[in-house]
Amino acid sequence: MDSELNKIVDFVSELEKLKCVHRQNKTLDDYRSENSAEHSWHVTLMAVVFQGSCLANIDLLTVIKMLLLHDVVELDAGDAFLYDEEAKARAELQERMAAKRIFALLPDKQSEECLALWEEFEERKTPEAKYAAAMDALQPLINHVITEKENENPHELTKSKITQKKRFIESVSEGIWEVARDQIDQGTNRGLYIDK
Amino acid sequence: MDSELNKIVDFVSELEKLKCVHRQNKTLDDYRSENSAEHSWHVTLMAVVFQGSCLANIDLLTVIKMLLLHDVVELDAGDAFLYDEEAKARAELQERMAAKRIFALLPDKQSEECLALWEEFEERKTPEAKYAAAMDALQPLINHVITEKENENPHELTKSKITQKKRFIESVSEGIWEVARDQIDQGTNRGLYIDK
Repeated sequence: MDSELNKIVDFVSELEKLKCVHRQNKTLDDYRSENSAEHSWHVTLMAVVFQGSCLANIDLLTVIKMLLLHDVVELDAGDAFLYDEEAKARAELQERMAAKRIFALLPDKQSEECLALWEEFEERKTPEAKYAAAMDALQPLINHVITEKENENPHELTKSKITQKKRFIESVSEGIWEVARDQIDQGTNRGLYIDK
Repeated sequence: MDSELNKIVDFVSELEKLKCVHRQNKTLDDYRSENSAEHSWHVTLMAVVFQGSCLANIDLLTVIKMLLLHDVVELDAGDAFLYDEEAKARAELQERMAAKRIFALLPDKQSEECLALWEEFEERKTPEAKYAAAMDALQPLINHVITEKENENPHELTKSKITQKKRFIESVSEGIWEVARDQIDQGTNRGLYIDK
C-alpha cells in the first residue's frame, strides 16, 4: 500500500485513543465522564452554528481543523483541568512534545499543517484561534448545566472565577458572551458554582 | 438574549444527547460501546487527512459539515446496525422525521442548510456525499481492528458481505479502497469476520 496512506492510517488509528481521555465534565450517558473525542465533535459543530455571531471575518475551515485537532495532544498529556493552574503549567511542555510525536505520524506536508494549526490555536492570536478558543470555553458551560447534578461543586468553583476565565469570549462576540454569562447564571442557580 | 442565539443554544444543548447513542463498535475505554458523537469526530477528522486521496475535486467544508451532522438524526432514531436490513429500512422514515425536528431547533436559514446537507449525504449523489460516505464506511473497519477482542463475531459477519457493503469506496478512491480491504483482511485474520 502507498506509504503516505499507511501513515494516515497510523494517525487515524492513534486517534482512536482520544475516546479514552476523560474530562472533568459529565455526560447524560449514565453520568460517565465526557471524553475529549466527543467534546471535540460538540465544539466543532458549535463553531459551525455560531459562526454568524463572530465579530471577525473568519475562515471556518481553519477553525474546524483547529477544533478537530486541538485536544489530540491529550493522548500523551491527558486533560488538564482549566482551574488547576499547576496542572495547566505542567501540561504545556507535555502537550508540545505530544503534538510533535502525534502529528509526525502523518506524511510530512500534513504533519506540518497540523502542527501549525495546533500552534496557532495555542497562541490565541489570530481571529480563527480566538473564535475556536471561545467555542472551546463555551462548550463546557452548556454541557455542565445539562449534565451535572444539582449542587455538585467538588472544586468549589465560584461564579467570579469562571467569569474571569471566560471573559475573553466578549472580544470574539458580544452575543456569544451573553450566551456564556447566561449559562454561568444557570449553573450558579443550580448550585454548580458558588455565587460570589 | 437574541432569539436566534437562543435557538442555537437549544440546538447545541440537544446535541449533548448524541453522546448517549451507542453503536455496535467498541472503544479501548474499558470496552464500552462507541457512541455516535465520538464516531462523528473520528470520521470528520479522517475526511481532513484522507482528502488528498479522493479522486473527485471536493469541497472539504461541505464534507465536514455533512459528517458533523450525519448522525444527529440518531437522537430520535437510534443507530441502526449496517448489516440489519430490517432495522435500516425501519430507521429511514424515523431519521427523516428526526432531521426535521432537530434541525428545526435552529434559526430558519441554518435549519434549511443543515437539512439540505443531511439530505445530500443520504442521497449519496454528489462527490462530497460519496466521499463523506466512504469515510463513514471506513471508520468502523479501522476501529474494529483496534478495539475488538479476537474472534468476537456475534453477528457472524462474513468477509464477502462486508466487502460487498463497502465496495462503493472504490469509486471514491482506489487508494482508500485499498486501505479498506487491508482493514477487512486484518479483521478477518483476527477472527472478527468469517473468511468466506
